[in-house]
Amino acid sequence: MRNDGRELDQLRDIQITRDFTKYAEGSVLVETGDTMVLCNVSIEDSVPYFLRGQNTGWLTAEYSLLPRATQDRNIREAAKRKLSGRTQEIQRLIGRSLRAIIDLDKMGERTIWVDCDVLQADGGTRTASITGAYVALVDAVNFLLAEGKLSENPLKDFMAATSVGIVEGKAMLDLCYEEDFRAQVDMNIAMTENGEIIEIQGTAEENPFTREEMNKLYDLAEKGIRELIEIQKLNLAVE
Amino acid sequence: MRNDGRELDQLRDIQITRDFTKYAEGSVLVETGDTMVLCNVSIEDSVPYFLRGQNTGWLTAEYSLLPRATQDRNIREAAKRKLSGRTQEIQRLIGRSLRAIIDLDKMGERTIWVDCDVLQADGGTRTASITGAYVALVDAVNFLLAEGKLSENPLKDFMAATSVGIVEGKAMLDLCYEEDFRAQVDMNIAMTENGEIIEIQGTAEENPFTREEMNKLYDLAEKGIRELIEIQKLNLAVE
Amino acid sequence: MRNDGRELDQLRDIQITRDFTKYAEGSVLVETGDTMVLCNVSIEDSVPYFLRGQNTGWLTAEYSLLPRATQDRNIREAAKRKLSGRTQEIQRLIGRSLRAIIDLDKMGERTIWVDCDVLQADGGTRTASITGAYVALVDAVNFLLAEGKLSENPLKDFMAATSVGIVEGKAMLDLCYEEDFRAQVDMNIAMTENGEIIEIQGTAEENPFTREEMNKLYDLAEKGIRELIEIQKLNLAVE
Amino acid sequence: MRNDGRELDQLRDIQITRDFTKYAEGSVLVETGDTMVLCNVSIEDSVPYFLRGQNTGWLTAEYSLLPRATQDRNIREAAKRKLSGRTQEIQRLIGRSLRAIIDLDKMGERTIWVDCDVLQADGGTRTASITGAYVALVDAVNFLLAEGKLSENPLKDFMAATSVGIVEGKAMLDLCYEEDFRAQVDMNIAMTENGEIIEIQGTAEENPFTREEMNKLYDLAEKGIRELIEIQKLNLAVE
Amino acid sequence: MRNDGRELDQLRDIQITRDFTKYAEGSVLVETGDTMVLCNVSIEDSVPYFLRGQNTGWLTAEYSLLPRATQDRNIREAAKRKLSGRTQEIQRLIGRSLRAIIDLDKMGERTIWVDCDVLQADGGTRTASITGAYVALVDAVNFLLAEGKLSENPLKDFMAATSVGIVEGKAMLDLCYEEDFRAQVDMNIAMTENGEIIEIQGTAEENPFTREEMNKLYDLAEKGIRELIEIQKLNLAVE
Amino acid sequence: MRNDGRELDQLRDIQITRDFTKYAEGSVLVETGDTMVLCNVSIEDSVPYFLRGQNTGWLTAEYSLLPRATQDRNIREAAKRKLSGRTQEIQRLIGRSLRAIIDLDKMGERTIWVDCDVLQADGGTRTASITGAYVALVDAVNFLLAEGKLSENPLKDFMAATSVGIVEGKAMLDLCYEEDFRAQVDMNIAMTENGEIIEIQGTAEENPFTREEMNKLYDLAEKGIRELIEIQKLNLAVE
Repeated sequence: MRNDGRELDQLRDIQITRDFTKYAEGSVLVETGDTMVLCNVSIEDSVPYFLRGQNTGWLTAEYSLLPRATQDRNIREAAKRKLSGRTQEIQRLIGRSLRAIIDLDKMGERTIWVDCDVLQADGGTRTASITGAYVALVDAVNFLLAEGKLSENPLKDFMAATSVGIVEGKAMLDLCYEEDFRAQVDMNIAMTENGEIIEIQGTAEENPFTREEMNKLYDLAEKGIRELIEIQKLNLAVE
Repeated sequence: MRNDGRELDQLRDIQITRDFTKYAEGSVLVETGDTMVLCNVSIEDSVPYFLRGQNTGWLTAEYSLLPRATQDRNIREAAKRKLSGRTQEIQRLIGRSLRAIIDLDKMGERTIWVDCDVLQADGGTRTASITGAYVALVDAVNFLLAEGKLSENPLKDFMAATSVGIVEGKAMLDLCYEEDFRAQVDMNIAMTENGEIIEIQGTAEENPFTREEMNKLYDLAEKGIRELIEIQKLNLAVE
Repeated sequence: MRNDGRELDQLRDIQITRDFTKYAEGSVLVETGDTMVLCNVSIEDSVPYFLRGQNTGWLTAEYSLLPRATQDRNIREAAKRKLSGRTQEIQRLIGRSLRAIIDLDKMGERTIWVDCDVLQADGGTRTASITGAYVALVDAVNFLLAEGKLSENPLKDFMAATSVGIVEGKAMLDLCYEEDFRAQVDMNIAMTENGEIIEIQGTAEENPFTREEMNKLYDLAEKGIRELIEIQKLNLAVE
Repeated sequence: MRNDGRELDQLRDIQITRDFTKYAEGSVLVETGDTMVLCNVSIEDSVPYFLRGQNTGWLTAEYSLLPRATQDRNIREAAKRKLSGRTQEIQRLIGRSLRAIIDLDKMGERTIWVDCDVLQADGGTRTASITGAYVALVDAVNFLLAEGKLSENPLKDFMAATSVGIVEGKAMLDLCYEEDFRAQVDMNIAMTENGEIIEIQGTAEENPFTREEMNKLYDLAEKGIRELIEIQKLNLAVE
Repeated sequence: MRNDGRELDQLRDIQITRDFTKYAEGSVLVETGDTMVLCNVSIEDSVPYFLRGQNTGWLTAEYSLLPRATQDRNIREAAKRKLSGRTQEIQRLIGRSLRAIIDLDKMGERTIWVDCDVLQADGGTRTASITGAYVALVDAVNFLLAEGKLSENPLKDFMAATSVGIVEGKAMLDLCYEEDFRAQVDMNIAMTENGEIIEIQGTAEENPFTREEMNKLYDLAEKGIRELIEIQKLNLAVE
Repeated sequence: MRNDGRELDQLRDIQITRDFTKYAEGSVLVETGDTMVLCNVSIEDSVPYFLRGQNTGWLTAEYSLLPRATQDRNIREAAKRKLSGRTQEIQRLIGRSLRAIIDLDKMGERTIWVDCDVLQADGGTRTASITGAYVALVDAVNFLLAEGKLSENPLKDFMAATSVGIVEGKAMLDLCYEEDFRAQVDMNIAMTENGEIIEIQGTAEENPFTREEMNKLYDLAEKGIRELIEIQKLNLAVE
């Protein structure tokens, strides 16, 4: 049994609050256990320099931890005047994952800014960011459709992400911070509704892992992501 | 009448949610109208270099707007790798205001970090930050007292802050963004429960103002701050 | 009596040397007691990006301490590759104060750069900067008028600034560094010739102050600023 | 057939030149097709702050492209004064992969610096860096053993890395730049001699991929890595 | 006798490898004793902002040491996020020296980027950079001529550079690191084929030197540079 | 005849004002024609990390142009958050030149900070900085001797610096900005009282120059520096 009483293949409770703030075209507060991420999607009516005149859109993501999102206070990156490698790695992951399910050619010359700000971090912040940002992205796209700014829905698929890992020899789904800290293997996966892989990143923290272990982790992730997509759908069904 | 129906001397509705996140020694979400600020107070068991060995504590504040706290998305200061003058001015104001009501000699060699992160900005973010941070500071101090880490309460007074201004010739209390934008005079005041001034900052945006106008603004601020301190007290009375 | 023999309501000696350097459109060395600030005003024939095409001008100020302007050498901000919060706060104050007495719509698409470089700091550098920069601004505007680049004088008023404070319970005018260091309350005020307020910033360094104390400080500042404006006028009367 | 005539499951020619420079404890020039990376391993007799006094070592990696390693000149990160997200992602990957096969507790309080500088980039620079850095690491460890600075070999396993991908529907091994550019799926894998996974990172550039495709890629990677480890061993067998 | 057996007026062995990498318009690996510098010349079809529309070209140089080019590892400037004074001084020297022998008016609106990356540093890296970069520049210019992009050769002269110095009272040519470290006087000279001076920089590290000593150093440099230009010519004679 | 009526071998008028500011241990305003540089020397009772415990001192120099020291306003390096190559080159030159005439072993573990801030730039700012800073250094050393902090004078020699150049084919001494701008050859020399060379830096801006031309420039510089040292001595003779 896990320290919060969950089964090995059980997700933490997840809450998705849409329209959490009023200005963003899509604004979702996602809570996965004690992890809380505010995912805001903003639409800007221009694209970066390298895409101008090509009649295509762009999507980019930024990620940040509030200073006291963590057990010990972490120094602001603005105060340090640089982004950590961890931050850059995560925001690149979020951006790539979302770009895989949107047809940017249907967006016109617009930039979609995805801001994932972690208010409280208890493990799985990058996958919660992806899962929540997807819902905010749907809202932002629907806003553009309703405004008549888009003629066609550019979203190609549902998607969500979760973490899996091996802790004390056991493969488990949706690690909280305490489990993540002790994990021998740590894997993050983003998938579509059909179980196709968007992104897979697995790391042996200390001991390399076998193909069998990878397959077991994959099965857990697939199960979790299917459940997450169900929750997203239920949530989005409410006007 | 004001555009949200308030009287000239009326505060916006204010909500103070304590223990909003779980790690910080004091964590308050303050909502003033549509302005939302998360105020986290963290205790660190050391002081900056210039104070070491003097048996005194330190308090410092940081302030940040989330990128989509505002009507248009603003670029992260971490991405720009510098703090704007506005941010620095505000965080210095918050820090000075709180230092004025705490006896740092009674804190031991500890640093109090006050983090004010604006989730939604609709005017008055700096004064809402001070008002909310004060409550979080009380919680953090009480935590240290309960843990036996402090033998005496270092807080000297209650305090809160508000904005006042002159909009189309009329002095008014607690400006929302739309009013602030049109204001000819803009003033922020922090006061104690006895109506003593901690900080006063008044700016003629275009036209200098008279001493009589300043006095009228002062009266409004004093009224508002008394009401805010009542709300803080009610809120803190709940265990 | 004060440590330099002044009365409580007495300014330090002030020297204003115009045309201190030869390239700037306005160049003033202002000396207030031992505080020395070089105030150069430069005219640039364009405006920042956000104002282009609006047929209006802009005014911005920068402030810096030379490394050995102070008792102990301070590290250059260029070497630290960041501006301190104090510097940003001061340069924003100088800029706002000067913008309040100039009609930028009459400047054409020009930027006025105000550079205040402190050669020696003995208290009151920010208010000396404002007082000196005003004179340099008059010279720069007269230069543009003489060149036929402006058809109308955009300056709306005379103005100057000074500091006041409470030191050992006594309200006093124009604090030198040693007084400023010991002050319980510190206030900077910029006013027009008619005694209207452009900017007021008062801070309780340790103990909050009463409205009566604020009024006393205000009276002192008003007296000092009237005298400063007389000196500016005498100085500017010389061709 | 591929544009350089290779089979789908065929590696490019690989050259490993040890002792390429004279100062580093391990110095390897690795050439994979036209990709050339200089991998230098340096030993420093101290550890970062957070590990001091724990009698353990540390390994960290840095990666950089020379400005004209690429078809078009890229701007130096030193000139831009920031590391790109790509650089940070890659150097974190190299560091993690190497830390997985070394027992840092056997290193004493030493830091191993792994510098991978790309002289010419034609695809697969990150995996060539890992493969070459491993050989340089063996040389550096042998140097420490020969000097009597280590009593026991801290290396736990052989390892190498390669890229695989799906290009125009075909899974292929060891992509050159032109193939990488056109790939629908891109995956980098680091494995031990026994075929255990150290790191797996797969990305759907546009279209999500199935589990079957992932398995096919995995098989190709495993084949390639076994061959790379053979080449490393042959190379290291020479004194 | 010198510690590597050379005469006082003897250059170290020099190797010039052209086409060392495949993308740059000119790519030379220059080896002077154990000093190894990769000199890449890139052509960009535009000029910096301040030269646009003037129908002239530009040439700029950048210089960098790989982290383990030196006996002890040096920290990357990209990681420190600033260029050292030494780096800036050297890259300005390389750029100025090369600009002196090229007629930029004949280049069209093109920028020539000269990148000198030191793979191994054993003294004389700045002069080796100039000597090698000159050859790469010839190759790049010939490439443009062959492509028909230039109608006339803009190069005005041959040139090379070397270091001279006084070590233990003896003037000597082409100092290695160990000699440079002990030198009382250190001088770098760039000259044309006719013995005309492009750049001379002499420094008394501790004791000022006489005009006679300067003349002796000058003679040595002139002899060395004539030999270096012979080697460049032989090398360039091969197609 | 030169545009200010000087002979080819004539220096501009030079004014040296000692004790220009009150805090620095040595403070000199040097004016050479219209070039004005404030040279402050500060003593710090510690040395940089790499010299600690070696019972030796250190001397380092910093140089900066005020924004409107020049004809057109230049942007502050603090605002750009980097030092230009020119600034770094000059401050390294000033530091090296002064270190050559001081015996740092006699300074104890102290750092001498030399700050050269250019108030007005009309050519020759780097050599004026050296010439003025030498006088300020003498004052600072005498201060330490008078305080009994040094037992022996560490200064080994008098020294000064000047610029020479070839303008329209004529060699001339002490170039003003307008001459410097048109110069074909530009040379800066620092020498001791005995005519020994501390630093020589000559640059062919466009056309390489002959050894005869270099000798002519050298003669002019030697004459100018002898005169400058006479002026320094007269100035220092006054208590």
